[in-house]
Amino acid sequence: MTKRPVLDFWYEFASTYSCLTALRIEAAAEAAGVDLRWRPFLLAPIFAAQGWTSSPFNLYPNKGRYMWRDVTRRAGRSGLAIVRPEIFPQNSLIAARLALAGREAGWMPGFTKALFRAQFCEGRNIAEEAVLTTALREAGADASAAFPLSRSEEVKGRLKAETELAKSLGIFGAPTFVTGDGELFWGDDRLEEALDWARDGR
Amino acid sequence: MTKRPVLDFWYEFASTYSCLTALRIEAAAEAAGVDLRWRPFLLAPIFAAQGWTSSPFNLYPNKGRYMWRDVTRRAGRSGLAIVRPEIFPQNSLIAARLALAGREAGWMPGFTKALFRAQFCEGRNIAEEAVLTTALREAGADASAAFPLSRSEEVKGRLKAETELAKSLGIFGAPTFVTGDGELFWGDDRLEEALDWARDGR
Repeated sequence: MTKRPVLDFWYEFASTYSCLTALRIEAAAEAAGVDLRWRPFLLAPIFAAQGWTSSPFNLYPNKGRYMWRDVTRRAGRSGLAIVRPEIFPQNSLIAARLALAGREAGWMPGFTKALFRAQFCEGRNIAEEAVLTTALREAGADASAAFPLSRSEEVKGRLKAETELAKSLGIFGAPTFVTGDGELFWGDDRLEEALDWARDGR
Repeated sequence: MTKRPVLDFWYEFASTYSCLTALRIEAAAEAAGVDLRWRPFLLAPIFAAQGWTSSPFNLYPNKGRYMWRDVTRRAGRSGLAIVRPEIFPQNSLIAARLALAGREAGWMPGFTKALFRAQFCEGRNIAEEAVLTTALREAGADASAAFPLSRSEEVKGRLKAETELAKSLGIFGAPTFVTGDGELFWGDDRLEEALDWARDGR
């Protein structure tokens, strides 16, 4: 058997477009015959390094207004209704650590999807323990084990290392897709192109 | 006969993604049965109002590196080879005034396409009179009449009014498409969606 191509899916839990991708990437990757590596990271340190103290969608109001409209339109095409949460962007630190705590156990994708739905389809706050716990349960994870593991030095270090790696790859937004030969694609609207590249190369 | 729907195509002469659109929008609009209104404007005053003194692709180097790669990939799909000009972004003031001087005479689209090709397929500087003159000739315009007209108070006022209108519509980047019912779509990658909306509505 030939080895299937792999696509890295870099995402940030506070990002609306990452949510759109997370909820549709598995079917698209399966159809393309591409394996996925889910890679949560933090955008805040990358934004801070270029002088942004918040999301560009808050710093630039017209861009923000447009983003919510665009995300709503795109979600509608997949039959999803977007609920704009009161807080945006949300603190995604614990979410990202929890996701990385579930990397080996295999519940990272399920947890990610459940948490994105809670945030952008139900308007919940993903910094709240109750919201995180519900998402863990939906993903079949043991919350009483996952929380302590997410606070371990090992998992904290993982998230730092992943965020550093994202930075060194030149990632500046989310979602970003990286192919085996190092080609970058930024944005939910580049998913199909990234999968094609992963499968067929340039 | 029923009236054909109209789509406003807002573009900036210094913008790479506006170039991609300008060189493919006519065939796409024709196929969709949509009429086009070409609307050059200046992004610099809109960027300046949000504190940017240059293109975001220069202010944020990773974003800039990615943009050139992405534009090259997208152009390749239409069989176009992008040549990165020495100066970026270029001063597009005279180009935009000239384009608006040709609105009634009908050579605005042809001039626009010729000038975009000169800038991003040949690496020329669109602030130079020789480059502008060649594009005027390619579009069938009389350069000796077009230049004085572009310096008239009337045409200067047109460009100011168009740029003010763009700002008041919430436009923050280029290209932007606006449908008859006021729906905004930003980016070359939203052209098909904008044409669908113009034709079928929401």
